Amino acid sequence: MLDEAGIVLTDAERAVIEVADFGLGRLGELGLQLVVYVNTERVCAKELVLLPGQTCPEHRHPPVEGSPGKEETFRCRMGSVLLWVDGHGEILLRPGDQFTIPPDTLHWFRAGDEGAIVSEFSTRSRDETDVFTDPRIRR
Amino acid sequence: MLDEAGIVLTDAERAVIEVADFGLGRLGELGLQLVVYVNTERVCAKELVLLPGQTCPEHRHPPVEGSPGKEETFRCRMGSVLLWVDGHGEILLRPGDQFTIPPDTLHWFRAGDEGAIVSEFSTRSRDETDVFTDPRIRR
Repeated sequence: MLDEAGIVLTDAERAVIEVADFGLGRLGELGLQLVVYVNTERVCAKELVLLPGQTCPEHRHPPVEGSPGKEETFRCRMGSVLLWVDGHGEILLRPGDQFTIPPDTLHWFRAGDEGAIVSEFSTRSRDETDVFTDPRIRR
Repeated sequence: MLDEAGIVLTDAERAVIEVADFGLGRLGELGLQLVVYVNTERVCAKELVLLPGQTCPEHRHPPVEGSPGKEETFRCRMGSVLLWVDGHGEILLRPGDQFTIPPDTLHWFRAGDEGAIVSEFSTRSRDETDVFTDPRIRR
């Protein structure tokens, strides 16, 4: 899908694409593939790849160590994604569309029938501090 | 060039592509085209488009209002770009290559013969505070 979108990765990046099933063992339904370009103390950028119909389950990024929590902008590059954000409802993102999710705000997202590639521009990622609504989830 | 790279913009974004000639009136040599996706208090993401041989002149992003200055990661998407960073020298970026420029560090960059598209992931952009080495430059 990344090749199809014209997104070039180095061999080193291809070797460490993250596949997240959130400990649920139902990757095709509840999962996410990630390429992390950079994650410094201040800035993070990733490509998120979702298979058709794949959902990233509801979660939020709480305040950590004096920071107000992770702020994320999702920009759809290919396919489509339905993004739900607490207080905003459902937002359909098609290529070129984007939405900025405030810190500590519940959200989930699901790819449409073609799958989706979404660029994420954010403050530092601290995945281990993410709070998922489903208590069975292990990030 | 953005179309060729498969980078989709909305009509609204196409209407406000920034063309920077730095007040020098020599756009083809010293200039830069920019699409700003997002620029919040914490995070900024842009696409930088450079024509063949076009150079963005030497500058740095100084500390502002208690922040240590803008931190930028440049990721080459198409073409090639020669990036010079004080203390690191010249770095050639081809598609998939990237480099993180520390705050308040002098740098310049020049596209190769095919031009270049470079994604920039950074802290907030405050272009009006940039310090250029050439005193004739007006951002």
